Amino acid sequence: MADNNRTDGQIERRQFLKRTLGAVGVASLPLPISQALAASNGSGNLAPNVPKWTLTQGEPILSPPYGHPSRFEDGVVRTPTDLTPTKTSSWSFTPLQDMNGTITPNGLVFERHHGGVPDIDPDQHQLMLHGMVEKPIIFDMAEIKRFPQVSMKRFLECSGNTLTEWKQPTGKTVQDTHGLLSCCEWTGVRLSTLLRAAGVRDKAKWILAEGADAAAMTRSIPMEKALDDALVVYAQNGEALRPEQGYPLRLILPGFEGNTQIKWLRRLEVSDAPYMTREETSKYTDLMPDGSARQFTYVMEAKSVITFPSGGHTLPEKGFYEIRGLAWSGRGKVTRVDVSVDGGRNWTQAKLEGPVEPKALTAFRLPWRWKGGSALLQSRAIDETGYVQPTLQALIDVRGLNSVYHLNAIQTWEVSSDGGVSNVHV
Amino acid sequence: MADNNRTDGQIERRQFLKRTLGAVGVASLPLPISQALAASNGSGNLAPNVPKWTLTQGEPILSPPYGHPSRFEDGVVRTPTDLTPTKTSSWSFTPLQDMNGTITPNGLVFERHHGGVPDIDPDQHQLMLHGMVEKPIIFDMAEIKRFPQVSMKRFLECSGNTLTEWKQPTGKTVQDTHGLLSCCEWTGVRLSTLLRAAGVRDKAKWILAEGADAAAMTRSIPMEKALDDALVVYAQNGEALRPEQGYPLRLILPGFEGNTQIKWLRRLEVSDAPYMTREETSKYTDLMPDGSARQFTYVMEAKSVITFPSGGHTLPEKGFYEIRGLAWSGRGKVTRVDVSVDGGRNWTQAKLEGPVEPKALTAFRLPWRWKGGSALLQSRAIDETGYVQPTLQALIDVRGLNSVYHLNAIQTWEVSSDGGVSNVHV
Repeated sequence: MADNNRTDGQIERRQFLKRTLGAVGVASLPLPISQALAASNGSGNLAPNVPKWTLTQGEPILSPPYGHPSRFEDGVVRTPTDLTPTKTSSWSFTPLQDMNGTITPNGLVFERHHGGVPDIDPDQHQLMLHGMVEKPIIFDMAEIKRFPQVSMKRFLECSGNTLTEWKQPTGKTVQDTHGLLSCCEWTGVRLSTLLRAAGVRDKAKWILAEGADAAAMTRSIPMEKALDDALVVYAQNGEALRPEQGYPLRLILPGFEGNTQIKWLRRLEVSDAPYMTREETSKYTDLMPDGSARQFTYVMEAKSVITFPSGGHTLPEKGFYEIRGLAWSGRGKVTRVDVSVDGGRNWTQAKLEGPVEPKALTAFRLPWRWKGGSALLQSRAIDETGYVQPTLQALIDVRGLNSVYHLNAIQTWEVSSDGGVSNVHV
Repeated sequence: MADNNRTDGQIERRQFLKRTLGAVGVASLPLPISQALAASNGSGNLAPNVPKWTLTQGEPILSPPYGHPSRFEDGVVRTPTDLTPTKTSSWSFTPLQDMNGTITPNGLVFERHHGGVPDIDPDQHQLMLHGMVEKPIIFDMAEIKRFPQVSMKRFLECSGNTLTEWKQPTGKTVQDTHGLLSCCEWTGVRLSTLLRAAGVRDKAKWILAEGADAAAMTRSIPMEKALDDALVVYAQNGEALRPEQGYPLRLILPGFEGNTQIKWLRRLEVSDAPYMTREETSKYTDLMPDGSARQFTYVMEAKSVITFPSGGHTLPEKGFYEIRGLAWSGRGKVTRVDVSVDGGRNWTQAKLEGPVEPKALTAFRLPWRWKGGSALLQSRAIDETGYVQPTLQALIDVRGLNSVYHLNAIQTWEVSSDGGVSNVHV
């Protein structure tokens, strides 16, 4: 905290706050409130001059007509991976350490492309629905938008999220370790509605989804998912999809790994068997210890991560902090998040921000008083199926170390005695 | 709809869809499905060539690191009013006619400034809390962020929204008529938490909120609201507040008129009486027919508007459309929205998208088959207090025509026989 101008009066105020706040109380805080909020003692001069910003007219409206963040937030941007030889088959991370709440603004949604971002004219874009259907149909964008519409807030996570963390703590920040994660309100039409329009034949069990990008990205989707909560969307967070999110049309498969949620969606082919595309044979499978590979591991299991304090943050002084993070599950709603400050020996249930929606990022928060020593911060999510987010060792015991995807283990951040926060394994 | 390449086969498919879809059914559609979905008959060639976008590598990741909409969406921007002599005390409108869902992306949130947008360095920004408190406090931004945090999705509406529509239909589009309306997930600290830290004295009943802009915008806030759901926020839709939304700190008073939700918040002074600032005496009052003025008319009453089809849209052909719109109430949750296609003679209950949150935009949708003649589209919202959005005439009967703010009457869009949609009074 800024402690310039701190005087005896300031110290007196701090003592006062300890007494007064203890009397007033804040029901939700399990810590003694005198300790908890006394950290927020204020600082500076109690009769501040009129700020310089009040002395001159500000910028006019519409500068620009489509707004941008403040120049003081220029550091809050997506960052690239250093693991890919090209920038077209590559990925970039969402800056979770600088964010608050559960919506990811469209400009910060993580990227994962296999052939770069196409620049598609929506007036020329079409979606073909064919294969084992009574009548194949080609839709243009105007037709897609005439179908009954739904909106859903759902998370999007790359199956490779956290992949650097299997053997040793590698990422410096939560952006590095967990930034292939975003959450938007998606709007479009249910895939089941389009399928009914075409008339799916009885023996149809799978659907191939293909993108209009240079990779012609293709994945096989189970019919059960298509008829459940799959969406064909054209809007995210109120406006049109962003180019890097599949403009003008993408598949959203809530809770499934990101690569299956085909962007720039141009083709859906109905079949009675999966298509065994490159992305579900040589890629996006999980090699087990016995040498067999798990295939079609679509669902992103329950996971959580503390975003504050997290790697790269510094706690300026002992005292009250709120531990904050995000939890999610591809199986449905998060029902509980526990937090530990001692590396998993003791756990306290955190507060979830409602309304909790299924397959959406859920904010959790827990008041904490940092006593100044070393602390090992962890969170674990539990979902409505009863699944408990595992420790890294428990995950490795089952999965071994041959695979790269679907690392949903508990993350540990160490607060050292100087207040620095870093990524560790325990 | 695009009807190039339409052949006899296309017509045959349309007939087929009428039969097949009638058999399959879509439970939520009250219209005969054969009529409803037959409009979505598809068009174009059933074996499309590989699109040109697939033939070349796309753009790399991080171009730019903070993303922008597609160039094909360049027309989806805020637009200015033509009613103000300056661009610093002025406003701009959100393009609701081109949007879907309930979140307003930060780049499209409407603007209303009284002295322009200040360019505030958050490291220099402070919030002073003083007056009838046990101990005055000055907070810097780091201190504010250490307090327990909450996130809420809430609408924001200027009390002047729709002000051009009292005497005659003036706005061409829903952006013109209702675009001083947005909805974000706001994150910050409850004002009540800060007030407890300072210790509010027993007789305190009001709080003056002051902005750090060139207008030093000031409003008096009732203590009851401050202790209920008022927030002091630093984030919107996951990232820092935008400059034009009060960066780095603003007041959010859910359901209150926008001007009370002081941006660039720098001072909160607790008192036993309202302050009678310019913005609550000469401005932001409602002159009644008898010459008296209503003052402190904070709450934005229940309101709704159809966003599709709305002014400026054109329906390309007879057939199925989904009527879509937004409803909201400053008193709590929207519980019902009714839609009329005959100027208010008959009403049908629309479907609300859940989870419905209090004081948040709520999407409503109703399937409709346009038969090709003239239609008068209206929506009316009903909130959890039982309040029913009034007709314009009912509102004028009570309020007269002396005032400008708080026009929450039912909006009418006329679909003419050529498919054009325009703003009318009935």
